Amino acid sequence: MAREIERKFLVRNDDWRAVVQDRQHFRQGYLTDHRHGKASVRLRLRGEQAELNIKSLELGVSRQEYEYPIPATEAREMLDHLCPGPQVEKFRHWVHDSGHIWEVDEFLGDNSGLVVAEVELEREDQTVNRPHWLGPEVTHLERYYNVALITHPYRQWTVAEREAVDAG
Amino acid sequence: MAREIERKFLVRNDDWRAVVQDRQHFRQGYLTDHRHGKASVRLRLRGEQAELNIKSLELGVSRQEYEYPIPATEAREMLDHLCPGPQVEKFRHWVHDSGHIWEVDEFLGDNSGLVVAEVELEREDQTVNRPHWLGPEVTHLERYYNVALITHPYRQWTVAEREAVDAG
Repeated sequence: MAREIERKFLVRNDDWRAVVQDRQHFRQGYLTDHRHGKASVRLRLRGEQAELNIKSLELGVSRQEYEYPIPATEAREMLDHLCPGPQVEKFRHWVHDSGHIWEVDEFLGDNSGLVVAEVELEREDQTVNRPHWLGPEVTHLERYYNVALITHPYRQWTVAEREAVDAG
Repeated sequence: MAREIERKFLVRNDDWRAVVQDRQHFRQGYLTDHRHGKASVRLRLRGEQAELNIKSLELGVSRQEYEYPIPATEAREMLDHLCPGPQVEKFRHWVHDSGHIWEVDEFLGDNSGLVVAEVELEREDQTVNRPHWLGPEVTHLERYYNVALITHPYRQWTVAEREAVDAG
C-alpha cells in the first residue's frame, strides 16, 4: 500500500470559499475508550457513507487496521447513542487552486474556529504552489491530528498553542 | 423480529455423541471492556463465518444491536491479538433426537467440563420430549449465559454453583 504524503497548513482568510468545488460533512467518534483495551473502534460518517474502523493501539511496525463499510443510518445511531467521548465533526471542502486539490477542513463543535488545508503530494520533495489564502504549515504538530482534536479540542487550546507553527 | 424461545439443560452422559449430525467450532471475544464505555463490541467466529456485533450496554426496552459479517481470517487475527479479556470457545453439535434439533455446546478452555443442550421452541408451552441423555434444566440461571461464562468461567465455579439447577 502506498504511503500518503500530505502537508497541512492553516489558512489566512476566507478567500478559499470562492473556489470550493464540493463539500461533505464528516463526523467521527469512538466506541472504545483509548485508556483501556488493545484496540480502538472508530465510527466515521462521510456524507451518506459510513465505516467502522478497528485499529491496534499498540504502536509498531505491524500495527493492525481493519475497515468495514456499514449503513450510514446505523453509524449515525451509534454516534448519537453509543460513543461516550467527544467527537470530531467538520465540513471538508474540496478546493482546486494553484494546480493542487486542497482539502479544507472547517471544524465544528468543540473544534470550531479551526480551519486547516491539506494537500496530497506524489513525492516528498514536490513543490507546493501556495494559494494566497494559505497560512503557515502545521504538518508536524500532533495537536492538529484528528485523534488529538478529540482529547484536546481547539477551543481548549492556549494562545501559544494556536500561534505556534512548524519551523522553516 | 420473532422472540426466541429457548430452553437450556445440562446433559447426563455422553450418549448424545452417537446421534450428532454436524458440529462447528465457535469462538468469541470482546474488543471492549464491559466496565467502560456504552457499548460492547464482540467478535464471533463460527467455522469460517465471522461477525462483528455491537450492542448497547444499557439495559432497557430499546437496547440497540448491530451485526456485520466480516472475513473469518480478519476475525481470527483480531481474536488473537486485539481482544484483551478471556474468550468463550466451544464446539456446537447439532443432535436430532426425540423430535427436536438439539444444540449441544461443549465448552473449551476456561469453561472446559461444561456441556449444555439447548432446544428452540415455537411456543412457550410446547412440550419438550426429553432424550434419555438430557439432564436438569438451567434455562433461568444467568451464570450459564455466554457473557457470564467470560467473566466467571466454569472452571472457577464452586461445587454449589455446578450442582444448583432450575427449580421444578
